[in-house]
Amino acid sequence: MSPTPQRRPYVSRTASFASGADSPVRVLEECLAEIDRREAAVGAFTLIDAATARTAAEAAAKRWQTGTPLSAIDGMTVGVKDMIDTGDMITGMGSPLYDGYRPRFDSASVQGLREAGAVVLGKTVTTEFASSQPRGTRNPWDLTRTPGGSSSGSAAAVGCGMLCGGLGTQVVGSILRPSGYCGAYGFKPSVGGINRGGSLDFLSQSVTGTIAASLADAWAMARAVAERVGGDPGYPGLTGPLTLPPAQRPARLALLRTAGWPLLTSTARASLEAGLERLRAAGVTVLTSEDCPELAAVEAATAEAREITLDINAWEWRWPLGSYMARDAAGLSPSALERHARSNAMTQADYVAMLARRQAARAAYTALAGQADAVISVTAPGAAPVGLETTGNPIFVVPGSMLGAPGVSLPVLDDGGLPLGMQVLGFPQGDAGVFAVAGWIEDVLGR
Amino acid sequence: MSPTPQRRPYVSRTASFASGADSPVRVLEECLAEIDRREAAVGAFTLIDAATARTAAEAAAKRWQTGTPLSAIDGMTVGVKDMIDTGDMITGMGSPLYDGYRPRFDSASVQGLREAGAVVLGKTVTTEFASSQPRGTRNPWDLTRTPGGSSSGSAAAVGCGMLCGGLGTQVVGSILRPSGYCGAYGFKPSVGGINRGGSLDFLSQSVTGTIAASLADAWAMARAVAERVGGDPGYPGLTGPLTLPPAQRPARLALLRTAGWPLLTSTARASLEAGLERLRAAGVTVLTSEDCPELAAVEAATAEAREITLDINAWEWRWPLGSYMARDAAGLSPSALERHARSNAMTQADYVAMLARRQAARAAYTALAGQADAVISVTAPGAAPVGLETTGNPIFVVPGSMLGAPGVSLPVLDDGGLPLGMQVLGFPQGDAGVFAVAGWIEDVLGR
Repeated sequence: MSPTPQRRPYVSRTASFASGADSPVRVLEECLAEIDRREAAVGAFTLIDAATARTAAEAAAKRWQTGTPLSAIDGMTVGVKDMIDTGDMITGMGSPLYDGYRPRFDSASVQGLREAGAVVLGKTVTTEFASSQPRGTRNPWDLTRTPGGSSSGSAAAVGCGMLCGGLGTQVVGSILRPSGYCGAYGFKPSVGGINRGGSLDFLSQSVTGTIAASLADAWAMARAVAERVGGDPGYPGLTGPLTLPPAQRPARLALLRTAGWPLLTSTARASLEAGLERLRAAGVTVLTSEDCPELAAVEAATAEAREITLDINAWEWRWPLGSYMARDAAGLSPSALERHARSNAMTQADYVAMLARRQAARAAYTALAGQADAVISVTAPGAAPVGLETTGNPIFVVPGSMLGAPGVSLPVLDDGGLPLGMQVLGFPQGDAGVFAVAGWIEDVLGR
Repeated sequence: MSPTPQRRPYVSRTASFASGADSPVRVLEECLAEIDRREAAVGAFTLIDAATARTAAEAAAKRWQTGTPLSAIDGMTVGVKDMIDTGDMITGMGSPLYDGYRPRFDSASVQGLREAGAVVLGKTVTTEFASSQPRGTRNPWDLTRTPGGSSSGSAAAVGCGMLCGGLGTQVVGSILRPSGYCGAYGFKPSVGGINRGGSLDFLSQSVTGTIAASLADAWAMARAVAERVGGDPGYPGLTGPLTLPPAQRPARLALLRTAGWPLLTSTARASLEAGLERLRAAGVTVLTSEDCPELAAVEAATAEAREITLDINAWEWRWPLGSYMARDAAGLSPSALERHARSNAMTQADYVAMLARRQAARAAYTALAGQADAVISVTAPGAAPVGLETTGNPIFVVPGSMLGAPGVSLPVLDDGGLPLGMQVLGFPQGDAGVFAVAGWIEDVLGR
């Protein structure tokens, strides 16, 4: 295999199905060929079912030929993060506690994908329970480095063309960070945007989202799911056009430096500054906390986003961690045991206090909405770190998670020749607007 | 077996464990004896595990003897509605689609119960997917009648002493209605009050709650669970004292007639009116919509509560019904197929419109909070109807479900000698307050 993927011109493959310029069968075969070349080294999958995928791709191809596609993503080759149930594939949750676990039914997001005609090729590696313990996947751009997590396999596979799209989930930084590290497009919807039923994605600020090889596919994939199975119960679910919203130049962008700013590598910072300069040259005002008090208030309210998030998550993990402990404590990683101890040290009152801090941060963020069209940042302090022991620092992405905001990772920055994402955040329920701004930024900065 | 249960003096059994006046082992054996007498006719259980329960009861008894109980409900004999996962018992969801389904782990509520020392004796019958299709359980007070649903087994078993408590769930009327029909105490918490993780209880206005043989046990059981596993992620979870809050006389109660008022039988109405007269005589003002515009507004906003709720539920059932259909449509009841058709006829926009109507009703209810200490009503238009084809009319209980309000069913009314519940509703997050008012009402009206 070639050691690094080509930086390919990311275009929507599904957009070429209607004209016949591309076909679900050809795309699937290209993905399978890439898997042959790279999967042994990358380790993005827990399971691949090429036979079932081929049957599905052929059916999709026929539908396009007869002008009866089920959706804009009919025939798209996708993978499913392995903590989201699939009725026909083992779902391992990144843990020996789920060895051989075979759900009877598809999760909501997988049901939505199948009803939209997507070709489910396999299950992609997740860290243990979509938390912090890595499970061996490597970054396709540099095999000595982490792909990020927890949606490690979806990001790595999409980043090197083994998949056109993958499902991911994010509660701390599990979609935008690995997407940034792997050169893929990541989309973390507003909280509640995509129905999480049938997955181990139950935390209050967690969302199911998409990772894809183009902005258009990241949007269309998520939107097709929400159209069919809605958002989380009680939420409207992702709305807006079924295909990528037209690019729209923002008047003002707010630069969210986050608590991670001092950690930003000089090369990553140079890449970001060069990008910002080109955005300014194209007529956009980039606000910083020095000239925007509302932005300063958001930075202050999210300065401890990581600690607040970890406490909220710990309490919300009382179940099922307690049940896991009762059944097989030896099957849990040190990281899971640590979270269990953290949860047991908390009371309901501690949790309520953390919810109040999160709510205050969200209120500050709402106040910023009148000042900027979107918020930008990076997805990590620099390129993916060397080593597979951690999934990298989430400090730049955890604020957006805590705020419940929709966000996109655009593969338009780099750090020493390795991918780094530009993070574009919107305001809750403004998911389509984020894509309009992100599309414009991509047009300006190039791919 | 005797055809009807004795109307027993409902007292908290667990409250007698500390003094040694009662013991978990004796209570369990009494439940098992009652099961021997009645279960063949009533059919409240899908599964009973006496051996495991005896071991647990003996351990609890030792803890009480040594002054080291795990909680106020340590040693309480309980059942679990069969759509809530148990790691050691098959969970059938009231559907052949889940035949032999054996979860690996306990649900959150079962984890909480076990951590609190409760003795899980078995699984209790639920209608199909906790919806409307009955599964054969009979009312212990009259075997020709329905016990109500969907928490049919928990209500029937508690109503005749086969259990001291049971878990239930309510999205339309599935705790308060069967509790009323079976002469048990039902508690439907505020939305989010008890963690629903690991159950098929995922709808946006659904809650997990308790059915017990005393008001004290209904509260202590629910509170013990929330103390250990919290509420739904993002919610504070049930708070307040760990044992029954002291009784408190309300100054004003609002009589919520609901759209069901014209259906109330004359004998049920006479029982309610007699109860209201005694409450007035004890110094309480009973408001009606004629003299309280805020109450009139709530009655207007909830007049179509059933239709709004059924639409909201239908959309939220797109998943998993679509996956069930894909796997085994023949395993679904006509009622489930009808819900699937209803959900497919809806769009996201229809759903959002229904959420808005629910939100408007909740706002009207909030405005009522300043006018009354609690809201009272009945749990059904009369005694449980004859026949096992339906679970009775939910028209009196669905408004409280749609409002997300905490509610209690008190077995203090009757209709022709059969049990009927008085429904006491509070305001969201005011769960402990509902128990304080309900305790006072029970003191006044007797048991």
